[in-house]
Amino acid sequence: MGGVSDLVSAALQQAEPLVTAMRAAPRTPAQPLSGDAARRALLGVLAEPGDGTLGALVASLGAEGTVALVAGERRAEEVFRARQDLALDPGVRAVEDGLERWRQRLDAGAFLRSLEAAERLGARLLVPGDDAWPVRLDDLGMHAPLALWVRGDPGLVGAEASLAVVGARAATGYGEQLTLDAVAGLVDRGCTIVSGGAYGIDGAAHRAALRRGGATVAVLAGGPDRLYPQGHAALLGEIVERGAVVSELPCGAAPTKWRFLARNRVIAALSDAVVVVEAGWRSGALNTAHHAASLGRPVGVVPGPVTSPASAGCHRLLREQDAVCVTDAAEMAELVGRGDDGLLALPDDASQRWAGSRSGDAGRKAQAGPEVVGAGLRGVEIRLLDAMSVRVPRSVAELAARAGLEPSRALGALGTLDALGRVRRTTDGWLIRR
Amino acid sequence: MGGVSDLVSAALQQAEPLVTAMRAAPRTPAQPLSGDAARRALLGVLAEPGDGTLGALVASLGAEGTVALVAGERRAEEVFRARQDLALDPGVRAVEDGLERWRQRLDAGAFLRSLEAAERLGARLLVPGDDAWPVRLDDLGMHAPLALWVRGDPGLVGAEASLAVVGARAATGYGEQLTLDAVAGLVDRGCTIVSGGAYGIDGAAHRAALRRGGATVAVLAGGPDRLYPQGHAALLGEIVERGAVVSELPCGAAPTKWRFLARNRVIAALSDAVVVVEAGWRSGALNTAHHAASLGRPVGVVPGPVTSPASAGCHRLLREQDAVCVTDAAEMAELVGRGDDGLLALPDDASQRWAGSRSGDAGRKAQAGPEVVGAGLRGVEIRLLDAMSVRVPRSVAELAARAGLEPSRALGALGTLDALGRVRRTTDGWLIRR
Repeated sequence: MGGVSDLVSAALQQAEPLVTAMRAAPRTPAQPLSGDAARRALLGVLAEPGDGTLGALVASLGAEGTVALVAGERRAEEVFRARQDLALDPGVRAVEDGLERWRQRLDAGAFLRSLEAAERLGARLLVPGDDAWPVRLDDLGMHAPLALWVRGDPGLVGAEASLAVVGARAATGYGEQLTLDAVAGLVDRGCTIVSGGAYGIDGAAHRAALRRGGATVAVLAGGPDRLYPQGHAALLGEIVERGAVVSELPCGAAPTKWRFLARNRVIAALSDAVVVVEAGWRSGALNTAHHAASLGRPVGVVPGPVTSPASAGCHRLLREQDAVCVTDAAEMAELVGRGDDGLLALPDDASQRWAGSRSGDAGRKAQAGPEVVGAGLRGVEIRLLDAMSVRVPRSVAELAARAGLEPSRALGALGTLDALGRVRRTTDGWLIRR
Repeated sequence: MGGVSDLVSAALQQAEPLVTAMRAAPRTPAQPLSGDAARRALLGVLAEPGDGTLGALVASLGAEGTVALVAGERRAEEVFRARQDLALDPGVRAVEDGLERWRQRLDAGAFLRSLEAAERLGARLLVPGDDAWPVRLDDLGMHAPLALWVRGDPGLVGAEASLAVVGARAATGYGEQLTLDAVAGLVDRGCTIVSGGAYGIDGAAHRAALRRGGATVAVLAGGPDRLYPQGHAALLGEIVERGAVVSELPCGAAPTKWRFLARNRVIAALSDAVVVVEAGWRSGALNTAHHAASLGRPVGVVPGPVTSPASAGCHRLLREQDAVCVTDAAEMAELVGRGDDGLLALPDDASQRWAGSRSGDAGRKAQAGPEVVGAGLRGVEIRLLDAMSVRVPRSVAELAARAGLEPSRALGALGTLDALGRVRRTTDGWLIRR
């Protein structure tokens, strides 16, 4: 393993100044050393995203110890084996498998070229401990990214009130229009819009955020140099300028199907909640929603016509998962604690008492009906109005008998209705006020 | 109170033969006596539907004791006061209020005319204890109907797998078409369709059930002689012929707004579950759904475009209540235990293992993505396919490095993919099978 060790130390030696240059400002003394960041960058080249064995090793031995283990340094192996006895670490067999697969990709030249490409792009490297590191990613545990590459404003990654707005690539006009409208409202409520940069809903979400002058973060499935899909190169370029484009993969890494799946966990973890606008029966957006749910993040789902295949996955989430039905920006913003707090007008009945269907149910949020009748009235008042006419005046006794109420209660209800301007008293009896 | 007592006994004496003629066949010795049924019919004239004080009194004293109390018979008053000491009954004050409001409507002539009208219509009177009495109504407790008037087949009232399909009167073409399609499927699954006979969704539900040769029950808000709304007289007449029209109100009783609200509790209680197809923000259908929920009945809700006001109430139920999103007949039928059980084809992926986003998650119903990729494959297999080409053959070692897998695992996954017909081996290496 001497060859591997030499290869690693040579690569790290050359990598460190590059990495130092790419650390995100501001730097504080508490930040991890660039040596740690360089090692994380190296491990990011060796492993596929979300490699739980690697995550567990780094948590246990640190990036330095893990790289030393990959490099085959005897001292690191001894430390690992010693800790094994404490049963704290991933199993020996899992680590042996891991070392085998990671070492296959040891290529100092490719690693350095990737760093140079990142530097040319002006990308920043974020690692845990950095001020700008989004601590929400820690919720992913052993599957958390080791580092993040950011093009644009690292301060937006993991901003407060981050809301992922994701959905089908094969979106319909309904879904896209809805996304444009809702995202504008979310930006107005101070939300940062996270999405995956894809065609369809993702693109509409980013675009609407930019148009509204809001913050938006695109999480890529490939390296930060791969502004994929091709047709969104200009959009993603604009996000680099005015938002942030993020990836856990190094420059040069292609977006593969596996990496799209792994990327979805980052979208979910970077956000306070996930909203799925449209999703086919097997859309990748459902994968993002499942990740959010398993991380304890709220999942909002926009319903659509049941006849639209582009909403089938949304309805599936509503049926099968603990997802919340959301229909507009206000309901989406509630998921991240940015409710309207009375800023916008509530539906005109929201503050009224609802007519319960049983007496004594006044506090219950029952519903008046049929259709629009009975708003804000109690049962006795509805019954009294039923017994009244706009033309034929009736006495309290007559109204009480018709309504099936004691006369005293009928009189009380008439008083209430009178105060509400719904009825009037004439010399011949009571009438409904037109 | 001598006058009241005489009035009541005279009315009951004349009512009993009429009521006897209208009891639903078959009669068994265990059935309640017609005297009891006649008294329940009388109480149904005196009180508004759902009068909890009356329900509690009848539960405690029986219909006979309650009518005697209303008639002011000293013995009944003594019994009531004696039981009061046991604190089993409604409070004295509530009963005094009740007696006051019920006695206002004591009109022997009107009561008998109502019974005669019912007899002319061929209506049947069902009371608790009758074979055809739907015991589900007992879930309403003190608010249960005292009796039911039925025109048509009493055997359909409370049939197994009864499903209420209700919704907005101001339905859209989307909602009506969906109702027609879904109800046909529900009839095919042996469901009995309960609804309220209104315009819009209710009417579409009844009509579709009749067209499909299925069973349907319309619950009216007025007496069984009031086939309301007017425009549905022919439809309701057809339901009388081929289904059942039901009301807890006597002939002559007008459908008032209060009675619509009270009727909704009967729709909910007569059904095993309630489905709301379309409902405006304040639709009466929401009231039915609330009743169902408070009775512990499942509530299914059909989503629609969030831009459609006719679906706003549906989305509200999904957000605010424990309602289930349903999109077709199969999902609706599941609510009443009439799932397909393999009778119909499941979506083609339902029986496959889903690709989890983390290894070890094989049993979790995670979702493959993006879009349609990864069906039935595990993560390692997806990663291996990512590393493969349809044109360039690659060795196991090369594929393992590209996929970031140990060669042995890569080989295992290749075996699986080979068995699935997804890849093939050439002399130069492995290729994706087109």
